[in-house]
Amino acid sequence: MDNTQKLIELFKEFPGIGPRQAKRFVYFLLTRKNGYANELAKLIASIRSEVYSCESCYRFFQKDNTENTHCPICRNEHRDKETLMLVSHDVDFENIEKTKLYNGYYFILGGTIPILEKNPEYKIRQKELIAVLQTKIQSGLKEIIIALNYNPEGENTLSYLQHILEPITAPAKIKLSTLGRGLSTGTELEYSDTDTIKNALKNRQ
Amino acid sequence: MDNTQKLIELFKEFPGIGPRQAKRFVYFLLTRKNGYANELAKLIASIRSEVYSCESCYRFFQKDNTENTHCPICRNEHRDKETLMLVSHDVDFENIEKTKLYNGYYFILGGTIPILEKNPEYKIRQKELIAVLQTKIQSGLKEIIIALNYNPEGENTLSYLQHILEPITAPAKIKLSTLGRGLSTGTELEYSDTDTIKNALKNRQ
Amino acid sequence: MDNTQKLIELFKEFPGIGPRQAKRFVYFLLTRKNGYANELAKLIASIRSEVYSCESCYRFFQKDNTENTHCPICRNEHRDKETLMLVSHDVDFENIEKTKLYNGYYFILGGTIPILEKNPEYKIRQKELIAVLQTKIQSGLKEIIIALNYNPEGENTLSYLQHILEPITAPAKIKLSTLGRGLSTGTELEYSDTDTIKNALKNRQ
Amino acid sequence: MDNTQKLIELFKEFPGIGPRQAKRFVYFLLTRKNGYANELAKLIASIRSEVYSCESCYRFFQKDNTENTHCPICRNEHRDKETLMLVSHDVDFENIEKTKLYNGYYFILGGTIPILEKNPEYKIRQKELIAVLQTKIQSGLKEIIIALNYNPEGENTLSYLQHILEPITAPAKIKLSTLGRGLSTGTELEYSDTDTIKNALKNRQ
Repeated sequence: MDNTQKLIELFKEFPGIGPRQAKRFVYFLLTRKNGYANELAKLIASIRSEVYSCESCYRFFQKDNTENTHCPICRNEHRDKETLMLVSHDVDFENIEKTKLYNGYYFILGGTIPILEKNPEYKIRQKELIAVLQTKIQSGLKEIIIALNYNPEGENTLSYLQHILEPITAPAKIKLSTLGRGLSTGTELEYSDTDTIKNALKNRQ
Repeated sequence: MDNTQKLIELFKEFPGIGPRQAKRFVYFLLTRKNGYANELAKLIASIRSEVYSCESCYRFFQKDNTENTHCPICRNEHRDKETLMLVSHDVDFENIEKTKLYNGYYFILGGTIPILEKNPEYKIRQKELIAVLQTKIQSGLKEIIIALNYNPEGENTLSYLQHILEPITAPAKIKLSTLGRGLSTGTELEYSDTDTIKNALKNRQ
Repeated sequence: MDNTQKLIELFKEFPGIGPRQAKRFVYFLLTRKNGYANELAKLIASIRSEVYSCESCYRFFQKDNTENTHCPICRNEHRDKETLMLVSHDVDFENIEKTKLYNGYYFILGGTIPILEKNPEYKIRQKELIAVLQTKIQSGLKEIIIALNYNPEGENTLSYLQHILEPITAPAKIKLSTLGRGLSTGTELEYSDTDTIKNALKNRQ
Repeated sequence: MDNTQKLIELFKEFPGIGPRQAKRFVYFLLTRKNGYANELAKLIASIRSEVYSCESCYRFFQKDNTENTHCPICRNEHRDKETLMLVSHDVDFENIEKTKLYNGYYFILGGTIPILEKNPEYKIRQKELIAVLQTKIQSGLKEIIIALNYNPEGENTLSYLQHILEPITAPAKIKLSTLGRGLSTGTELEYSDTDTIKNALKNRQ
């Protein structure tokens, strides 16, 4: 297999990229000036060494010239120590920060648990979560918000988390909450599924 | 304009039907056996005379040989007299009944109020609603659930209803509630808008 | 089953209409003024008696007060007697007339032949076609253009027609032609299937 | 702007990639093993130096350890010297080779000519094409097939090419042909535009 083919294979592993687009990427690189390809290569090679995974929430953050091993949010003393939010991926964290509504801390699970998964404990950062919880409890944690997608895999991950967290949160009187359900922007009753309407009714205000 | 053309024009007024499909309907009728077209015509001509608009909730229901002017639900003494749900259309009512979660009564507004509408009172059954409320209050109404689409026109209709209902409900200590908001089936945090996430956070449980 | 339900069932038979839209049609009729429903019913009941199926090409045409049993096109002496075009449906005929490029006569097959169909002769107007051909041949027919969709069912119908027509056309030295194949408006080579490119190459000019 | 941001910006220039997917690419790289990112970087940096643009047809091909400056196809003596096909991009060439129907040579124009373009000669490899044609004519070229997308920009490029090539091909009695037009796979007459039907009629066989 020649290198062009090898590169196509690597691009095919990119999220949401099929064989045709992978090939277009290669042609795109071939037609762009050398400077572009070289800077791209340099950044790809260096990016991981320049990005830390926060030792407390495990999200990625840009290293600065200090020796910080915790991300700016985890270092921020002014956030609410009483709430911790569990999300699957960094992008979820970003979307929630955008709302400017949440002022607590985060923990990035790093994945979700497929239905019928044999080894759920390896699909998310379970050990790390348990460890982090100990410290958080010391510093007055009162609520854990489990913020996952509302789809089968998210539901499965949710019940697994509730199952492993209850033994820790119950004695410590920590509330385990999940995101509210109901109508989301654009929902029309005529086209909604029964679950959504049920949730909207139960959670009416 | 010949009758074929006239018929196409009438079909074009059907919800969601464009010129091409309207024409296909006509060809469809021409190729079907006469019996089909005749029965269709008979039913279309008779349907309105056989269907009542309930004098209490205003939804359509099939006349029976009794003189009932109220639909089976409004006649049902075993439903919960303390709650009344306001919906825009009959189809919304049907979807909510499907959930088997709601046991109160309904009122069909018959429409929604477009943004910047000059005469909102003519876009929904306002007079009829006010009248119905008087009787409902007599019989112990405690909550009005406003169940509308979560889109700009639904939002506009909601605030208009809150505005006209408060003077009636406040003194009578009737709760005005709306459907809960948050994640609906299938929602993924990565692709959700800020409003949906905000609602999901506020309404977490 | 009450009449509302019956009407929904009839609308569900309309081309491209599912249960949900069928129900919306009924609600639409219930909310429209009586005049609308009555005129619609009148036209639906009368349309077939006012429309002839042409005795020569079998397409539908509006009856006029004459006793014409042939459509305006078949009556038009100035069209080209040497070519006859076979199409599946009236809508295909209309689209071809729009091009103003064809000046011969037509024959509406009234359908297509599904793959593996046991009784192809009943799926199209085969008897009628054979009969019409006799007269057309008398009046100097030189070419039959088979104009069908380029999809599996169209292809199947095409080869069936070639099979039954050859015995008639060959001795009479009548050319059997089909619509040209190649790039259609908007086709991009990068996204084209192999067949389309093959046809475009073979038929290059 | 930190390097993560810089990398997102570079990915945003990839064909068909928006800000959201660009970001997902970066997270994808951060979560993959280092080996992956390093090999990707290595290939991206080296790919251009390992790929030649053929001096005859200008398509990209993998360098081998020989000093070949012509691609395998242009070096292949057994292909048909009488036909040359002009295409916009390497991907078009690949799709046409897939058909195994064409055995002549190619020339990659490297682009298309936007409508109202001021300097068309810079949008395609015009100089190179003229030069290549001289040699091809020496070796018995009899036909040039212009194989472009059937869309406005492709049409515009086609007429420009015909305009600049005629002075060369006419005296040399070289045929200038274009890809055939008509129904492409899946075309249904009911939904076809007039141009496609016109072409299908003109090019009937």
